[in-house]
Parts: sequence; structure tokens; C-alpha cells
Amino acid sequence: MEKKKNISMAVIRRLPKYHRYLNELVKNDVDRISSKELSEKIGFTASQIRQDLNCFGDFGQQGYGYNVKELCKEIDIILGLTKEYNTIIIGAGNIGQAIANYINFEKLGFSLKGIFDINPKLLGLKIHDIEIQDIDNVDDFLKNNNVNIAIICVPRKSAQKVAEIIIKNNVKGIWNFAPVDLVTPEDVIVENVHLSDSLLTLSCLLKDKI
Amino acid sequence: MEKKKNISMAVIRRLPKYHRYLNELVKNDVDRISSKELSEKIGFTASQIRQDLNCFGDFGQQGYGYNVKELCKEIDIILGLTKEYNTIIIGAGNIGQAIANYINFEKLGFSLKGIFDINPKLLGLKIHDIEIQDIDNVDDFLKNNNVNIAIICVPRKSAQKVAEIIIKNNVKGIWNFAPVDLVTPEDVIVENVHLSDSLLTLSCLLKDKI
Repeated sequence: MEKKKNISMAVIRRLPKYHRYLNELVKNDVDRISSKELSEKIGFTASQIRQDLNCFGDFGQQGYGYNVKELCKEIDIILGLTKEYNTIIIGAGNIGQAIANYINFEKLGFSLKGIFDINPKLLGLKIHDIEIQDIDNVDDFLKNNNVNIAIICVPRKSAQKVAEIIIKNNVKGIWNFAPVDLVTPEDVIVENVHLSDSLLTLSCLLKDKI
Repeated sequence: MEKKKNISMAVIRRLPKYHRYLNELVKNDVDRISSKELSEKIGFTASQIRQDLNCFGDFGQQGYGYNVKELCKEIDIILGLTKEYNTIIIGAGNIGQAIANYINFEKLGFSLKGIFDINPKLLGLKIHDIEIQDIDNVDDFLKNNNVNIAIICVPRKSAQKVAEIIIKNNVKGIWNFAPVDLVTPEDVIVENVHLSDSLLTLSCLLKDKI
């Protein structure tokens, strides 16, 4: 199947939503769906959907709709879900522990290999059979293990320093929960979850209603 | 000060980042900053910054830069941070507890008033002096308390049902952590934090590097 390269960031941001909805359809034994029907479920316009899905292959057959299973497989490939990712969590506070316990990630192919914290009270405790280690061990751990994604859950003041240890050890993916924008080389992918930013967006839109 | 109304969603999404950087400048006793200097810190272009800040008032003085404190105050108003918000958390699993413990939100004016869960083992436990109550009490609680924001941290299957109880009780703000797109009336503001979507965006961008 011929594919177009260079999918735009806007399309990439929509892909996980397609992934969620299409997997739901597979679960419900839906074989085919038209862009119009998918539009009603997912909330994008039918023309947006046709344009998006056109970016990475020719699935739709006019009048027959999309083959749901094929589309799912292709989206899995584009989202990188046919690969496996070794991850570590740095910072085992509330957010770090919540992420460690969020078992759904394992199903998607993200395997948690290590958890690190600075707090002596947490060291030695286990989450899903993984012992929380001293943050001073991160450097050695990364040298001895193939880690693809580091999940940063430390306070803002330590985040850049932690990022630098990660980058030095050739980890190319950072999932950053610290409320700070990390300075990283171009070949490192950083995906931020800035909870405060999200809450402030909500208050901005809500303020005139209360 | 004359302000333009109807700030676009794109500008609103950038505002929390301005809020973070400008508050950092205030802490560091910086009085004035040019769009060029701010650009170097925040990563938006200087022309983008001038255009954004122009949306809600006339702060910049050519050659003198922006008055940092005034700008902060104005952004606080636009973000709704001069108001107080009463919040409840529904679902006291890992994410719910992490949010409940994320004390920074209190500083910003978001006050946690209730925590609810379905799990009998959690009922009666306290987080920051707030007892986890049975989820069956949510309806009554909302009738008797002025709640502005409900934070939904329940599994995807229960999220829509929970949202409907909230909406029925006239809560206009939902911060949704459930991996599902809620169906809500137009006057209800929903801000989603879809962790899986965020992780899949990361794997999508990372897949060819590993």
C-alpha cells in the first residue's frame, strides 16, 4: 500500500482518537464504517476524516466505507504500536505512582523497567514488582538497560537536570509531567502533560459562567 | 484598558504558558521584558507574542517592552484566576488521589470540597482532611454545595453516567481524565487530559528512532 510521508502534527494529534474509536468498533464486531458514520461518533467532519485517513493509505472504497480492522492495523503501525518500548519513571510521588499503576500502558506495548526517587522513605517499596531505586542509580541503570522512554514526574526544579542525565544516555523519548518546558536536542522527542496548563484553560473558559 | 473580546482557542491554549513564564519573571524581580527577550525564553516568535498579547490590551510600549507585573495581572484575569473555584473529584483511584494531593491547585484558587469513589475499601479514608465518600452521595452533595468544577477520574465505562449526574446538578466545568469523549450540553466546558492519547503521540513520533 502506497503511503504518503510527512504526516502533519495536527493529524498526528488526532490519530490517538481514531485509534480509540476504531478499536471500540472492532470490539463491537463492526466490519465497515463510512466516513459519515465515523464522523457522527468521533466528532470530526466526514471530509476531515477522509482527508486524514487519506494521508496514510487508500482504505476507503466509495460506497463501501472503510475496512475497520485494516484501518486499525495501519493506525497501530503509524502510532508505533507494533513496537515495544522500555520505560522508566523518575519521581515516584503521586503522579509517578499513578502512572506506574496505570496498567493500560502495558497492554499498548509500554513496559515499565525501573522507578526512581530521591525520597529515602520510598526506596525499596515495590510497584508492580518493580522496586523504587535511588535516583542516583538512574545513570548506571540507563547505561546497562535499553530504555526508550523516560517518564519525568519530578518537581519543576529538578526536571532539567534529570532530563540531561536521560539525554546523555541516549534515551530519545521523554514523557514530561513536570510543569516546565525542557531544553533538549532536536532528536529527542518530548511530549508534555502540563496539568496546571490544562486546568487554567478550563478556568479561562469557565470564568464567565460562575 | 480597552480589550478585544473573543480570544481564539489557539491563544487561550498558549496563555497558561505565558502565565508560567511571567510569574517566574516576577519571582526573579524582572520589571520589564521585550517581546524579543520573552521569545528567547518561551519559544514563541516575538511577532507571535506581540500579536497574542495585543489580543487583550495594550501593554507593550515600543522600545520599553512589557510591564511584567501588569501583564501577569491581566493574564490572571483572563485565565479566571481572580475567581475561586469549588471542585470535587469523582474516582479516588491512582489518578484521582494524585490530583487530590497536587497541592499547587489550591494556590491557584481551586478548592477541593469532596472526593467520591465506589470502592468500599476507600470510603472514610482522608486526603487533606477530606473524607472519601460513597459515589452515591454525589447527587446530594451537589444539591447542597456550590461546585464549579467536577474532576472525573473514573474508568471509561462509568464516565458518561457520572457526567450526567454532574450536568443535571448544574456544574458547568468538567476536568475529564477518563479516556472517553463525554457527550455534554454546549454550556458545559470540558477539558480533557487523555493520558493514553498523549503517550501514543509520543510513540508515533519516536517509533523511527528506536
